[in-house]
Amino acid sequence: MSYCIATYRIHDDHADFHKKAQSIAVGMTVGSWTELPQAKRDAMKKHLGEVYAVEVHESPDGSAGTRYADIRIAYPDINFSRDIPALLVTVFGKISMDGRIKLTHLDLSSDFLSSFPGPKFGIDGIRELLGVNDRPLLMSIFKSVIGLSAAELREQFMRQAQGGVDLVKDDEILFENDLTPITTRVRLCIESANIVEQETGRKLLYAANLTGRTFQLRDQALRAIDAGANALLFNVLSYGYDVLQELSADPEITVPIMAHPALAGAMYPSPHYGIAAPVLLGQLMRLAGADLVLFPSPYGSVTMPREENLSIRDELHTTALGVKRSMPVPSAGIHPGLVPKIIRDFGRDVVVNAGGGIHGHPLGTEAGGQAFVQAIDAAMHGVPLSEYAEAHPELKAALELWGGE
Amino acid sequence: MSYCIATYRIHDDHADFHKKAQSIAVGMTVGSWTELPQAKRDAMKKHLGEVYAVEVHESPDGSAGTRYADIRIAYPDINFSRDIPALLVTVFGKISMDGRIKLTHLDLSSDFLSSFPGPKFGIDGIRELLGVNDRPLLMSIFKSVIGLSAAELREQFMRQAQGGVDLVKDDEILFENDLTPITTRVRLCIESANIVEQETGRKLLYAANLTGRTFQLRDQALRAIDAGANALLFNVLSYGYDVLQELSADPEITVPIMAHPALAGAMYPSPHYGIAAPVLLGQLMRLAGADLVLFPSPYGSVTMPREENLSIRDELHTTALGVKRSMPVPSAGIHPGLVPKIIRDFGRDVVVNAGGGIHGHPLGTEAGGQAFVQAIDAAMHGVPLSEYAEAHPELKAALELWGGE
Repeated sequence: MSYCIATYRIHDDHADFHKKAQSIAVGMTVGSWTELPQAKRDAMKKHLGEVYAVEVHESPDGSAGTRYADIRIAYPDINFSRDIPALLVTVFGKISMDGRIKLTHLDLSSDFLSSFPGPKFGIDGIRELLGVNDRPLLMSIFKSVIGLSAAELREQFMRQAQGGVDLVKDDEILFENDLTPITTRVRLCIESANIVEQETGRKLLYAANLTGRTFQLRDQALRAIDAGANALLFNVLSYGYDVLQELSADPEITVPIMAHPALAGAMYPSPHYGIAAPVLLGQLMRLAGADLVLFPSPYGSVTMPREENLSIRDELHTTALGVKRSMPVPSAGIHPGLVPKIIRDFGRDVVVNAGGGIHGHPLGTEAGGQAFVQAIDAAMHGVPLSEYAEAHPELKAALELWGGE
Repeated sequence: MSYCIATYRIHDDHADFHKKAQSIAVGMTVGSWTELPQAKRDAMKKHLGEVYAVEVHESPDGSAGTRYADIRIAYPDINFSRDIPALLVTVFGKISMDGRIKLTHLDLSSDFLSSFPGPKFGIDGIRELLGVNDRPLLMSIFKSVIGLSAAELREQFMRQAQGGVDLVKDDEILFENDLTPITTRVRLCIESANIVEQETGRKLLYAANLTGRTFQLRDQALRAIDAGANALLFNVLSYGYDVLQELSADPEITVPIMAHPALAGAMYPSPHYGIAAPVLLGQLMRLAGADLVLFPSPYGSVTMPREENLSIRDELHTTALGVKRSMPVPSAGIHPGLVPKIIRDFGRDVVVNAGGGIHGHPLGTEAGGQAFVQAIDAAMHGVPLSEYAEAHPELKAALELWGGE
């Protein structure tokens, strides 16, 4: 028999956690068990959830709110269809509303996983598109784009591209609008990217924000690709994982998809409720086919604890999942001084992603990009940033403003 | 100018909440403001978010974790498209990940609302389908259906139907499976419903669980309707509100849609994070077109505070939204003794929904339904249940087991 195993952390000062585990295993699968006649039990056995483990953490000092258990329940694959909505409703549908319970981990069976094609490009595919194999990638984010004219948008793209970034992403709050609809944005940005490529030989991906009504997203994506789009940004959690999977698995959507974590904070930060970040922004994003995944970095103002970040990285990088690896994009609060730390935490298969850390550079956006290029160069050659900065005024100015190693 | 106003509750022991409000208003719209030259400000003014109100609640005793503010930010409609994903990303995308912040309320502009057709049937339409205008409706839930054969499912449906319920709903964890695929379930249940209608004159809606891959849901719904389905159940939060809207607004999907709250517990229960239940399970479900909305009742084991329940009711019932009203379905832990309380809390425009309270009746499922019919009858005539039970053995047995007024 084949199972998917869900791990929950349940906070309760008094509960009999073993009994609770039994009630989840039965209640979320066959509904009732002890009342069933033997013949019926034999027939239903293959549908019954099983308590896989119960690890009780007694309150160290008996203070309220500190006693919890990690409970693992195995759900027979035969009970649900091979899609993320069915998986989530099975393991966390009703039970999400039953007290202080958080879904912290999912071990998915190879049978279940076999239905998921995963990312179309993944880390290696993106590197191939860009022709960059030996270092972290560098991305910059459009800034203050609402209300920008097409010409202003183009100019901002150009300044970012000339700074030496590998990717530029739309702001996730830029929706279809009269000034810069997606096909206009794509044409202008890709045109500018081509100019930079001709000048420098560097390739550039521009992730255009795919928005609108669900059943029109595919057509919208095809229109953007037809206009030249070479990447797409998608607010996955506002649509659902399965919509991402529909798009990523579509043979006509021939560009990488970048998953934005908008709304994720409604689900992962509470210790008592929700879905842990490594599941929400790691495993499920990758399974649904995200080639790149943004999530709050542990470095800046919008923070997430470092160990959670590294667990997201592990979910995106692990070879255990049987699909291509996704590129982690720890975001927010990133400046050039953090580059060595990012590489220590994530290795070279990471996107260094900056908004304010590029646009806010004292010498301007282009210099902001250059400072990051220099920081990555230094870090990859094991040269301390402060030393490298001696001969690189852009990096020097960045370190003076934001600090760093 | 037209705005949608979002209210947040932010917990912070030390923050300058007025400054925080300003930073949300600017950061979630135009990105920067004070640095802009005057000419640019004039052009951008119409895109700028505005602080509408800041209500600081100082900690009464200075103890950590008790200081908070309710902050209201007005977002110009011009910034986002007329769909729920754009709305949610605009008002709670990035900011959801920035500290202890919960989205507690949305005031949507009439301009924004005008793009939403809302429920196709609503309370009045469902009453018309059933021919029941003067009392709460009664629904029962299939129990332990995973692994049931078609014959067993049919038999269970029949017992529920004969008890006098108005609606029967699928278990939300029943996905496409070899034993009882949706078209088989629909045919058997509707056939049984027709038999009961011929015998008793009572109509019955059967909400079949619509599952599978997103881009196939419409076809799946049409197949079910073609097989005779007269209602659909949908796990909205595992797919996204916009998918519900796509289905509910489709002219060929000619049956009421019932929204299940599976996964909602990942978002509403924390006082510090997430989206409040009246927004999550009230306003947005109705806006997306749910004709009936299930949510945890304040009476049973899966509970929600009573005032939150009544706020959901208000969001589903209010005439302010300009679309048809949705039927509230407070669920879990419902037994016949609770009927007078449910009617006091919700009025008669409510679905009394029971699983264990029907199937667990000492005299069987059919008697379980009858006990509820009797309780509703008594309550609508202002007769105390205990008095009515004298001449009604099914109600009497239910009150003896579960208690009640």
